[in-house]
Amino acid sequence: MAVRVSVVEQILSANDQLADANRARLDAAGVFALNVMASPGAGKTSLIMRTVEALRGEFRIGAVDGDIATTIDADRIAALGVPAVQINTGGACHLDAAMLQRALPELSLDELDLLIVENVGNLVCPASFKLGVHRSILIASVPEGDDKPYKYPVMYRGVDGLVLNKMDVLAAFDFDVDYFRRGVEALNPGLAFFPLSCKTGEGLEAWLTWLREMVRRHTLGR
Amino acid sequence: MAVRVSVVEQILSANDQLADANRARLDAAGVFALNVMASPGAGKTSLIMRTVEALRGEFRIGAVDGDIATTIDADRIAALGVPAVQINTGGACHLDAAMLQRALPELSLDELDLLIVENVGNLVCPASFKLGVHRSILIASVPEGDDKPYKYPVMYRGVDGLVLNKMDVLAAFDFDVDYFRRGVEALNPGLAFFPLSCKTGEGLEAWLTWLREMVRRHTLGR
Repeated sequence: MAVRVSVVEQILSANDQLADANRARLDAAGVFALNVMASPGAGKTSLIMRTVEALRGEFRIGAVDGDIATTIDADRIAALGVPAVQINTGGACHLDAAMLQRALPELSLDELDLLIVENVGNLVCPASFKLGVHRSILIASVPEGDDKPYKYPVMYRGVDGLVLNKMDVLAAFDFDVDYFRRGVEALNPGLAFFPLSCKTGEGLEAWLTWLREMVRRHTLGR
Repeated sequence: MAVRVSVVEQILSANDQLADANRARLDAAGVFALNVMASPGAGKTSLIMRTVEALRGEFRIGAVDGDIATTIDADRIAALGVPAVQINTGGACHLDAAMLQRALPELSLDELDLLIVENVGNLVCPASFKLGVHRSILIASVPEGDDKPYKYPVMYRGVDGLVLNKMDVLAAFDFDVDYFRRGVEALNPGLAFFPLSCKTGEGLEAWLTWLREMVRRHTLGR
């Protein structure tokens, strides 16, 4: 097992170096990059689409979509009139910095303010691979259940913001929001929390305000 | 990258050997073992609990529950009066044959007919690691969306049965069952398919009939 651990450490270290290079490239172009992680079907593409629709008048937005197969997500986002690049991981369970590095030249970074990176649907592996982005968020969803912070602590610990999507169906599920939040607070105290529904639009404004502030602060800090 | 692929191949080959040993051990004890895979929150523990409640009068059932952290799932199943062992993977995104090998001695296999193994919630990685079980199933759920077969083809291709859970909330989601099934059929033609609701009990009987048949066939075939 020692050999295996050592190889994994080398892979992660190489990934970190590529992530630093991605970050430098994004910074040079003045782009704020956001990594969006979630279980399959929690609503990553839906939140990105809502966000693009709301903010495309204020910021120049691009997207990178990671999936094992298909271009379904990038096609949906591109249909909103913003540049979207699909990464097919061909089986891999997460995006890594090398995949993002290969995708960046397909976007005109100098013409973007905000790059949204949609990771592969997975509550485990994406948390271990830095991409070089400025912030990472997790989208949980009501139908997944309120015990997920307790079961997937690494993911909940590593993010800068938490969306709880599908609040419109809260009444149909046994989801205790207080129990969920207590689990989150124990892992990541003070984490920005946005209960919302991409379907109805309820709660979206608080999320948009947070993201707008993040992008503006990044632009002013240059 | 060549080095990395080679290491991964060696890990998988070692895993396959341990899986074969697990299978031999289960066969020697006359136990039929089922691997249950799904996204986080699709309803693995709920389906296992429903199954235990329905079949514990016919078969002697045990469970192994894989999670990154907590004993929530094993505790829930043990509360039904069947032996349940929790495996905490400590960060790993899937069960592997070595983990199952370490869990088996904690169960009295000679006193079981059916062993249900609940994998880590993940639509990607568990599909690549054989455990040595006799059959594997996937639980999809309505809130995840109807595009999951297209996006996670490896998982859908590798299973022997497919449950579509949370049918009770179908009307609340934009889920096209025909589109979902066409995706499944393209990957895994003729796959046994069980739309049901663990919450209401609707559709459970077809699933139970299939599993009952699998266990009986295994017992008779000895």
